[in-house]
Amino acid sequence: MSNDKIEVRFHPAGGTAKAPAGINLLEAAHLAEVTISTPCGGKGICGKCQVLVRSGAVSEATAAEKKLLTEEQLSSGVRLACQARALGDVEVEVTQQQVVVRKDLSEAMLREFELGPRVKRLELSLDPPALEDQRSDLLRLREGADLECCSCRALLSVLQKLPAVLRDGQFQVVVTMMDDLLVEVETLGEARDGLGAAVDIGTTTIVAYLMNLTTGKLEATSSSLNPQTVHGADIISRIEYARDEPGGLATLQAEVVGAINSLISSALADIGASIEQLYEVTVVGNTAMHHLLLGLDPQYIAQAPYIPVASQPLTVYASDLGINTHAGGQVFALPIVAGFVGADSVGVMTAADICKRGPTLALDIGTNGEVMVWSGERLLCASTAAGPAFEGAKINQGMYAAPGAISKVDLTDGDLQVSTIDDEPARGICGSALFDITAVLLETGALGINGRLAESDDGLPAGIAARMSGEGNDRKVLLADAEQAYDGQPVYLTQRDIREIQLAKGAVRAGVEILLEEAGISVDDLEGVLLAGAFGNHIRPESAVRMGILPRVPVAKIEGVGNAAGAGAVMALCSEQERVLACELAAVAEHIELASSSDFQAKFMEAMLFA
Amino acid sequence: MSNDKIEVRFHPAGGTAKAPAGINLLEAAHLAEVTISTPCGGKGICGKCQVLVRSGAVSEATAAEKKLLTEEQLSSGVRLACQARALGDVEVEVTQQQVVVRKDLSEAMLREFELGPRVKRLELSLDPPALEDQRSDLLRLREGADLECCSCRALLSVLQKLPAVLRDGQFQVVVTMMDDLLVEVETLGEARDGLGAAVDIGTTTIVAYLMNLTTGKLEATSSSLNPQTVHGADIISRIEYARDEPGGLATLQAEVVGAINSLISSALADIGASIEQLYEVTVVGNTAMHHLLLGLDPQYIAQAPYIPVASQPLTVYASDLGINTHAGGQVFALPIVAGFVGADSVGVMTAADICKRGPTLALDIGTNGEVMVWSGERLLCASTAAGPAFEGAKINQGMYAAPGAISKVDLTDGDLQVSTIDDEPARGICGSALFDITAVLLETGALGINGRLAESDDGLPAGIAARMSGEGNDRKVLLADAEQAYDGQPVYLTQRDIREIQLAKGAVRAGVEILLEEAGISVDDLEGVLLAGAFGNHIRPESAVRMGILPRVPVAKIEGVGNAAGAGAVMALCSEQERVLACELAAVAEHIELASSSDFQAKFMEAMLFA
Repeated sequence: MSNDKIEVRFHPAGGTAKAPAGINLLEAAHLAEVTISTPCGGKGICGKCQVLVRSGAVSEATAAEKKLLTEEQLSSGVRLACQARALGDVEVEVTQQQVVVRKDLSEAMLREFELGPRVKRLELSLDPPALEDQRSDLLRLREGADLECCSCRALLSVLQKLPAVLRDGQFQVVVTMMDDLLVEVETLGEARDGLGAAVDIGTTTIVAYLMNLTTGKLEATSSSLNPQTVHGADIISRIEYARDEPGGLATLQAEVVGAINSLISSALADIGASIEQLYEVTVVGNTAMHHLLLGLDPQYIAQAPYIPVASQPLTVYASDLGINTHAGGQVFALPIVAGFVGADSVGVMTAADICKRGPTLALDIGTNGEVMVWSGERLLCASTAAGPAFEGAKINQGMYAAPGAISKVDLTDGDLQVSTIDDEPARGICGSALFDITAVLLETGALGINGRLAESDDGLPAGIAARMSGEGNDRKVLLADAEQAYDGQPVYLTQRDIREIQLAKGAVRAGVEILLEEAGISVDDLEGVLLAGAFGNHIRPESAVRMGILPRVPVAKIEGVGNAAGAGAVMALCSEQERVLACELAAVAEHIELASSSDFQAKFMEAMLFA
Repeated sequence: MSNDKIEVRFHPAGGTAKAPAGINLLEAAHLAEVTISTPCGGKGICGKCQVLVRSGAVSEATAAEKKLLTEEQLSSGVRLACQARALGDVEVEVTQQQVVVRKDLSEAMLREFELGPRVKRLELSLDPPALEDQRSDLLRLREGADLECCSCRALLSVLQKLPAVLRDGQFQVVVTMMDDLLVEVETLGEARDGLGAAVDIGTTTIVAYLMNLTTGKLEATSSSLNPQTVHGADIISRIEYARDEPGGLATLQAEVVGAINSLISSALADIGASIEQLYEVTVVGNTAMHHLLLGLDPQYIAQAPYIPVASQPLTVYASDLGINTHAGGQVFALPIVAGFVGADSVGVMTAADICKRGPTLALDIGTNGEVMVWSGERLLCASTAAGPAFEGAKINQGMYAAPGAISKVDLTDGDLQVSTIDDEPARGICGSALFDITAVLLETGALGINGRLAESDDGLPAGIAARMSGEGNDRKVLLADAEQAYDGQPVYLTQRDIREIQLAKGAVRAGVEILLEEAGISVDDLEGVLLAGAFGNHIRPESAVRMGILPRVPVAKIEGVGNAAGAGAVMALCSEQERVLACELAAVAEHIELASSSDFQAKFMEAMLFA
């Protein structure tokens, strides 16, 4: 009987894994295609992969679990998925929030642009053949479409059905072209709108925008966690996984491809469309995400001199990647700039048409922090190792911007006023709130410029003083008490969290300073500051300036632009002109390797202060 | 035991079919991948599919076999493969000649041309990356190769191995490009020469020329029967098979693809090269062969107004067709002119660079007869339904130009002097001999201008008179007696054979007349006449003029140019310039639909006379 497999059932996702007894719950979730976020990569360090075991026998709590979970939690069945093993059939509830980040595209669309996609759809009314007009079906079609007829490319499958479709449709047909390639022919009566998907592959989150390529309308949006997070929250751990695990690269590629397929399929289902209507997918992502999608070895990105395999815009057949589309569907990966300045930055610069502006600073704050500076003459980019702190990882009670996340903190009557997304009971703290809290604590003197929480209540507003407890590295600030919290667990910001914030903001700010210096402009020269990223437009400009991730610019110049990287992918999908712009921007952008800047360390140390 | 399969073993090819007892020998040959030519399509009419049953039980002779085989043949085990069924394990000898047509390329290469293939190979010595030079691997490669870097396309599989190859080769590499597509990267030490194959798909014969694309050298040639011949010798029966049989088109496509794969594989084996060295395959063939290779529905070629699916030059991935090449290999099908004027004619016109000549008439005599006329101003083409008579089909004892075929006939001392290929005992009559015999018989008065063999010996040379026997439609001329023949069976040319020759030559000649008239030139204006086709350069110019397939031009102007269609495919493979020429010629060529010419019938009737 020892060969019998047990079943691990996951709720509410509904997946089931069949595996030998003893399987780790995280692996089982993987088998069941249920995503559980593991910022530490399943090493039992971060304590983020909590699940609730509803029924069934599981292994004893490990030392890591005893350290990271309360006795109360353990006794109520809460376990870490990376630690607990199923000994028999088990029912598991994934309590972790799935990503439901709101990524409204309209706010990221910084400007209007002209619809003119690469995928072209033409209605043709052709003369039927005659002895006096013996042109071949394809020549008739191309001349009818007013296309050059000498460079003729057509999908073989389309040529194979061409005579039947032409005759069934009595020579009234709709053709779909991609460049000079004929990819579809339909009778006028049966023709359906052509669709495309723009996909933003974040280290943490993947978002797909389904676009109607005839009308330019956003038809549906879908998003999910990047399933690669089970191998670690940050880029470096993914690269290491690809390099060190046998078949690691193939696994990571299959995961992101699977996620994209799910997102596309769910977006298509939303509007009742068929996969055969989907002709093109454009993709943005940082260089590591870009390489992992394409199955390109990312290891040289992570070691000096930090060389990507391919930086240019790439067009590949969707079928070569395993992405489900129309049989002739293609994937266009926007170009990248350098090892850590990816197609996502190119997307932001494209969405902003940055070189058409006055001197501009743009920040894309996701798991990494990319900094772009347009001086009016030079376009400079750098990647800062901000780490995923602002996306909730490394923050003790950090989380994504999902319902129940503390997203805003104000100072009212000498106390913190805390708001959660959708006004739900507090579950944790998301990125935008980290900016606010830091700013408010600095404002009231509860946080020193060196990043230490005040040890005494002297001079602090009474409300804030009452929230502070603990000592030294265990000092913390209460944000939501047991009554305000979702599961009765109070939400705190800790001294250690503040150290993480300091590191992240210091890295970004040092990058900003070095780029401005290299560009030869001062903060005062900046006509605008763009804050992009999942929560870019949830950040309060004044908090960003006060806590110091941004230099002191007038708040009015700061604009939150949401997922501008995704907007860039949408624009490249819907307009050949914007696609060309993206390629041009990537080509003119100069990458500044911060690590090789002689005063980076000094700038970084300085920028960590909340001065 | 009734479920047990029997074995049908074929010699000398060596294939074995396992099938239920009762299987027809032709079907068994098909299963065993042994080609047996069946001009009548396996209907028991032509008697060409003779095999020798060495051992084992077979069905009783059918009425068709009794009619077409002598009692002696039947008793010695000769059977028609399309009629006989295996009742148990059977050993069968395929006595039919396999095609070993000599197709020397050099004689078809009418002119020199510059080597400049689409497949380009570049040796690169690249600077290794550094912090001051962080270009991506692909950008480094493309800039090193001096290629435009904005339109970057690369096979995904090449990108995937690129970083390893660059570093293994210490940035000394050889790249292979097709247009702007990077298809291979090898270290300098491991790089091998790039190869290409030019394939001429005849209705009856397929020939492959394996070319070294770096040196331009012909490395190997291989040829075989077109396995589609089991469904009929002529184009129309193939088109009907594709249209009427369920899965017929797929079967025909699989057959030609399989034959091409065998030819390529045998040519590669000849020189010890690997399939991974083969980057491109160019293809010529008549329109039906072209469509069947590509899986395009040929039915509209065969019915008015005779419309092909695609006439333009087509480039498709070899893998989409199932043709074995390098993973990124492509197939280039030369353009066609019209429903019955195919890429083979375009190949001939390209090989001849016909528009650079003075007024020229070109004939490509294969299973069909294509006529091309260049007037100095207009390029006209037509296809004549010559039928496969000149390739041996429909001729009672006709055969391909293989050893033992009667290939030349002279008049010496009032008698026929008959020569066979390789001086082997006579097996049958091939195309070039038909021209000679007809000319000689006309010369001596043994054949009247109306195509009737003389019924009396009056006035005939004694030698010839002695060879004639039979009466009316059974009258015949002895070419080789039992002693001179391979199997003791005398070889005759019959009155019915002469009728077939009349029909074929009449069709071609009528086409010539109509094209010359349409072109507005006379026979005297012609500066040259090119005879292309499998036996084009075995035809004696004087016989061609005497029997009347050609108008009366001075013999010195007539040139046999062998397989010029194949030469055109080779040139398109080895030179982009010649490929462009082929596309231009196909575009300027005007197709003349003979059937719609008002005086075709009159011209045809007239041309059938041996006047």
